[in-house]
Amino acid sequence: MADILADTGAVDNKRRKLADSVAGLPADVVSHFRDETLHWSATSGVLIGADSTFAHAPCALLPYPFPSSLFDQAKSLAAPFNVLVDRCARSTDWLHKTTRSVVGHDPFTSRLLTLSETVTSEGVAQQLQLGIYRSDYMVHQPSEDAAPRLLQVELNTISASFAALSCKMSTLHRSLLERWGAVPGSPESEALKRIPALAAALGDSDVLPTNGSEPEICAAIAAAHAEYVKLAGGDERVSPVVLMIVQPTERNVIDQRGIELTLWANHKIPVVRISLDEIVTRAVLCGPQRRLRLSCGTGSLEASVIYFRAGYTPNDYPSQVEWDGRLLLERSFGIKCPSIGQHLAGTKKVQQVVADPEELARFVAPEHAARLRSCFAGLYGFDEDDLSRAQQVVDMACAAPERYVLKPQREGGGNNLFDEELKEALQKMTPAERASYILMERIVAPTHPALLMKGTQVEGGPSICELGIYGVFLGDGRRVLLNQAAGHLLRVKMANVNEGGVVAGFAGLGSPVLFP
Amino acid sequence: MADILADTGAVDNKRRKLADSVAGLPADVVSHFRDETLHWSATSGVLIGADSTFAHAPCALLPYPFPSSLFDQAKSLAAPFNVLVDRCARSTDWLHKTTRSVVGHDPFTSRLLTLSETVTSEGVAQQLQLGIYRSDYMVHQPSEDAAPRLLQVELNTISASFAALSCKMSTLHRSLLERWGAVPGSPESEALKRIPALAAALGDSDVLPTNGSEPEICAAIAAAHAEYVKLAGGDERVSPVVLMIVQPTERNVIDQRGIELTLWANHKIPVVRISLDEIVTRAVLCGPQRRLRLSCGTGSLEASVIYFRAGYTPNDYPSQVEWDGRLLLERSFGIKCPSIGQHLAGTKKVQQVVADPEELARFVAPEHAARLRSCFAGLYGFDEDDLSRAQQVVDMACAAPERYVLKPQREGGGNNLFDEELKEALQKMTPAERASYILMERIVAPTHPALLMKGTQVEGGPSICELGIYGVFLGDGRRVLLNQAAGHLLRVKMANVNEGGVVAGFAGLGSPVLFP
Repeated sequence: MADILADTGAVDNKRRKLADSVAGLPADVVSHFRDETLHWSATSGVLIGADSTFAHAPCALLPYPFPSSLFDQAKSLAAPFNVLVDRCARSTDWLHKTTRSVVGHDPFTSRLLTLSETVTSEGVAQQLQLGIYRSDYMVHQPSEDAAPRLLQVELNTISASFAALSCKMSTLHRSLLERWGAVPGSPESEALKRIPALAAALGDSDVLPTNGSEPEICAAIAAAHAEYVKLAGGDERVSPVVLMIVQPTERNVIDQRGIELTLWANHKIPVVRISLDEIVTRAVLCGPQRRLRLSCGTGSLEASVIYFRAGYTPNDYPSQVEWDGRLLLERSFGIKCPSIGQHLAGTKKVQQVVADPEELARFVAPEHAARLRSCFAGLYGFDEDDLSRAQQVVDMACAAPERYVLKPQREGGGNNLFDEELKEALQKMTPAERASYILMERIVAPTHPALLMKGTQVEGGPSICELGIYGVFLGDGRRVLLNQAAGHLLRVKMANVNEGGVVAGFAGLGSPVLFP
Repeated sequence: MADILADTGAVDNKRRKLADSVAGLPADVVSHFRDETLHWSATSGVLIGADSTFAHAPCALLPYPFPSSLFDQAKSLAAPFNVLVDRCARSTDWLHKTTRSVVGHDPFTSRLLTLSETVTSEGVAQQLQLGIYRSDYMVHQPSEDAAPRLLQVELNTISASFAALSCKMSTLHRSLLERWGAVPGSPESEALKRIPALAAALGDSDVLPTNGSEPEICAAIAAAHAEYVKLAGGDERVSPVVLMIVQPTERNVIDQRGIELTLWANHKIPVVRISLDEIVTRAVLCGPQRRLRLSCGTGSLEASVIYFRAGYTPNDYPSQVEWDGRLLLERSFGIKCPSIGQHLAGTKKVQQVVADPEELARFVAPEHAARLRSCFAGLYGFDEDDLSRAQQVVDMACAAPERYVLKPQREGGGNNLFDEELKEALQKMTPAERASYILMERIVAPTHPALLMKGTQVEGGPSICELGIYGVFLGDGRRVLLNQAAGHLLRVKMANVNEGGVVAGFAGLGSPVLFP
């Protein structure tokens, strides 16, 4: 989920076309890079689409420069963030209270909250929680002489996507770069040598970090599956499977299939895809443990892990049937990824509240809290319980709207407000409407030239990037069985585009090339 | 090249649609097989297309039954066929004489012959020849009580395609079958158990032979490259590369890119793609050895191996420029795959002439000759030097046209004649026109039910298959450095389709499941 790239300072550069491309690359070299990237994407399955034809995933043609120390910092934050989400999700009283303050004008978060309250009051059937998170960061450098800082844009706790495509993209970039570099004197090799960050990569592939996002996330699912099988004991008439909850009209299906295929190839664990509207007719809860079974043919399938790749947006719940399906899943003995608690712990409101040092101290040890706080951008709520404080925040934002982003609670991209729109919206809203938004300090990211490909079209120009670090966590509230970073995602977009999802084509998949 | 599936007895079955599918498979199971095959094809790069979108390669949804002993026999024939082609190609007097008899009405083969004569009279610059061949077979079983026999359809000595896609198709079929089988009681598992050949595969994956076509062919190219580097010595200003000769508008590009990508991943050898029309402007022959170099930027590339994935059809030579390009390549020190001699050794005429035991004995040892002859179908020429013999062949064919296929020399599919068309054509032709054709015994293949997918459409019905065995060979006329089978290709088509290329969508890629 969360395909958006948060905005940066509005650099008003015109997009430039192939023939007039960046970094002095000759048009025929760019054309060659494009053809090879296009075809290697198809050869290795870096694709978008679900029906009979597939398009390459929009992407950057070359690795994108990222500061080495900030990359390491981002990786090191995965484990403490994993713990933070787990503890927030299990502190249900706190979680419900925090979320309740924003649900007045956010019916979707309101229903998620009700669902969580229902499940909590009944008693949770499965204490194990699997987390597959992605924490997204940008580099903040408001002026040239300021030291670049890593700031968190958001923490995705449900349906974090692109792990499979990103893993393949890293391999593809590394292979193409190595190959072009291996032909000294060729126009490709000469062109790359003139780009300082990439010239370093030609001689030292350590600056292109390996990216195990696909296999590492599969290994986490496999670990949860194995724990489930241990807990559930054997029943030969029942096959344990991973249930992947999907949208009926998903376009990013090859990313999901990558996880499915690797989960089979590496762990021999089958995945069954199912959409929320099918749950109530196909699934039942069996026995006092409330095991989730799908009857099929002469046998039945039992869900070991319930892996949500849908359910994060109101669009996934067009009727009561989907909400009933979600409730049935949450009530079951299957290991949810995420549970409703983990889902709520990913809302912007929780992100804003835990940015408060006192709140953060409730959940993580002091040394971890300090590390987490280092990446928090300024975050402000509009709490209805403190109207004078809320008005202060409105005044601050309206005085300098270019310094902030106004974000709704829910995910999905394309809903953030900037500049004059932000100001107008804040001035028009009632206190209750405002309460379902948070205000975030706007990140000013440094730009680098990049070439982005969509279809067969290549555009070059100053670009910014967003780094996502995947994190995997498995625990039951007493024991932590797994807690680590699990690869990365780097998305690149033209610096003048305020919003952009990779699927929507405004941003492209990339990979980092590290520099000191 | 040679996308055709030779014809079989004309079984006049109506194609049947998804809902009414074969082998009693329920429509929802077929639909599930289709979705998974479609998406796993995209995930693993089993794709057709070259521009911004790609379609899955038309394919069979499930492995297709093939007799185990005939599969082993086909594999064992690769090495002797490799030797046969190499020796025919080097026996230039014999080769030119044999080919000359058919060129009267075949201007394309005539120009290939002239080119070979030119190169031979000048003296061949490079004695090493790399062969990447594919010998295509069908099972011949004219009646139910006849023992099935393996008969050769043709031997492709240039541009043998689908090695990369076929390799991935085998892996895909194996993975899906294992996974469906791993969920006992599911409709998929139950459906597979009712198909005897596949039920065996569920319990014993040895009946699904591994297929190393892609890596093994890359290893052969790498071996030739290494020999070239040894011969050529080092010049630091020059980078040795594999030159892949391609059509400017190739649709099967992902198959070619698979070879390119694996050649890089496994051997770190770069491939440069170039079309025949670009050769004379981009390439030069350097020094007395006639090394083939492409100047580029500040350095130059030297062709170690010249791998033809174009040049096999008259359409690849729209003007003199392409012929000049081909001649330049043939005159060079690069290792051709194939040389013009190997190319000519793959003509139907040579296939027909070496089917004569006396001719065959000139080239291979007696024990190999006997094995090769075992797979020869009846082959007949219409030699202008022996008009009474040619008339006998015409009379024989016209008396029972349903028992034969009339084939032109050149490759590419879609040009064969059957039944009444065959009879009419033979009766109309002049002796010189006839001489450019060969008559072949028509193979009557047993049918099995199959499900073929093209786009999102699935058709089921009685089908036949063609097995291709790749062979790789490297030698210089004195030493044999490499001579072995290198994986396989299984194509499936509906039994009522006379001609069908996989790219054209009449046939589909498949994989064999062996039965005793």
